[in-house]
Amino acid sequence: MEIISENKAFGGRHIRYRHHSEMTHCEMTFAVFLPPFASKDNPVPVLYWLSGLTCTDENFMQKAGAMKWAADLGLAIVAPDTSPRGDNVPDDENGDYDFGLGAGFYVDASEAPWQQHYQMYSYVTEELPALIETALPVTRERAISGHSMGGHGALVIGLRQPNRFVSVSAFSPIANPMSCPWGEKALSAYLGDDKSKWQQYDASWLISQKQHTIPVLIEQGTSDQFLKEQLKPERLLNAAQQSDTPITLNMHEGYDHSYFFIATFIRSHLEFHASHLGIL
Amino acid sequence: MEIISENKAFGGRHIRYRHHSEMTHCEMTFAVFLPPFASKDNPVPVLYWLSGLTCTDENFMQKAGAMKWAADLGLAIVAPDTSPRGDNVPDDENGDYDFGLGAGFYVDASEAPWQQHYQMYSYVTEELPALIETALPVTRERAISGHSMGGHGALVIGLRQPNRFVSVSAFSPIANPMSCPWGEKALSAYLGDDKSKWQQYDASWLISQKQHTIPVLIEQGTSDQFLKEQLKPERLLNAAQQSDTPITLNMHEGYDHSYFFIATFIRSHLEFHASHLGIL
Repeated sequence: MEIISENKAFGGRHIRYRHHSEMTHCEMTFAVFLPPFASKDNPVPVLYWLSGLTCTDENFMQKAGAMKWAADLGLAIVAPDTSPRGDNVPDDENGDYDFGLGAGFYVDASEAPWQQHYQMYSYVTEELPALIETALPVTRERAISGHSMGGHGALVIGLRQPNRFVSVSAFSPIANPMSCPWGEKALSAYLGDDKSKWQQYDASWLISQKQHTIPVLIEQGTSDQFLKEQLKPERLLNAAQQSDTPITLNMHEGYDHSYFFIATFIRSHLEFHASHLGIL
Repeated sequence: MEIISENKAFGGRHIRYRHHSEMTHCEMTFAVFLPPFASKDNPVPVLYWLSGLTCTDENFMQKAGAMKWAADLGLAIVAPDTSPRGDNVPDDENGDYDFGLGAGFYVDASEAPWQQHYQMYSYVTEELPALIETALPVTRERAISGHSMGGHGALVIGLRQPNRFVSVSAFSPIANPMSCPWGEKALSAYLGDDKSKWQQYDASWLISQKQHTIPVLIEQGTSDQFLKEQLKPERLLNAAQQSDTPITLNMHEGYDHSYFFIATFIRSHLEFHASHLGIL
């Protein structure tokens, strides 16, 4: 793990790292915020934040205004990149923003040419936590959140791995990727045409299958330009009712898909996770 | 005034505008944050924020985390661009970041080819407030702040125009541009070789000349990579002692020149200005 840069912020530290990933077979970049007083003798729990299409580790750290609240709560934040990157990593043939680089969709790809590098599900759930928990002053208490494509990733991971993540939240998630243009494009390419393989990466399908007990909190703006065609939170809500799974979905009049929306409500998500992580 | 984009944020509105400027003879872009409940019947005071080298209206609005506090205080924020822009606007011959586009230094240029467009002092102090006070639900109560080159701009404007701005603050300002590389390059080109013309754009010179009464608040990180060669806050402090002008300069151990530093301390600056604007 090599440090790219470090900034003091809110009494804590924002550090960007580069490392070679065994799972994505390339160099990966991620960012960490460590709150004040985090140390080997005082390790802190971690919120993983998964970003949306086109983002890197930087968007959330720079734009969400989350560090203030994380510093107050004693919570670390880890922001991975949104895909493998590098000259050898294949990209969308047209260079579109919604597939390939910056658009890993947090799946383990099975199809060529994607399967060698696009293993973001395993990277985010296994390799990255193991690395962080070895190298940094954090506990093994984890929560997960994200935005848009990252909201999809967080929900899928939280629903599938409640033993590894104590709570899950999302802003404007792609709630039913099996039936929206972004999701259909990505899942068919990364996973092939057999839609039964897509189900494990679809929060609405996952939540419909059984009653889940992991706490779930979602924010959605009503003026989000992607709400009707891509995000479809009503599908998740219907599926949760079907399985009698309690979820909280807050609709916010007039808010859009931007980081201004995230910044407005991020405090409540950090407090939600902090309460389940036992630090609030 | 044409709206480029609008986002709801913290119950208020972030709006980017484009307009033709009479003073800079080009299209200018700026951003406004209007707090909740600002209306013609309930106009709010304005904090002008001047950004640093390479910035536009976007950096502060996206990265400073200021909207939360401005919303709570009932304070509008206006972030102008850092220079004139456009195909007809001359730029540094080498395209360097520290002069020309993105580097107007908040002066009224007198020298060719800069004088036609680079009139940022008049634009920021006269044209922009007049426009905003006509079109938006704001009062004529104004404060001013900024970062780096914009901290220089804010200090110069506040010291020269205490009747138009009730308080002034700065993060990591270029405190003595007459004798640092950034300032010498810009002032010699925009204003010519006669250094007596530079004095009106040098906060340390201005503050040395007489006792000023406008409240002045400055933050500076000790790990700022530009501290010793470019910023030189000790010059300002010495000049203020010379004229018996009260200023507050807070030095912060380990903080750098980034927006992470600004975000950490911006709340105290908004509260400082709010108290002088009579809303706190």
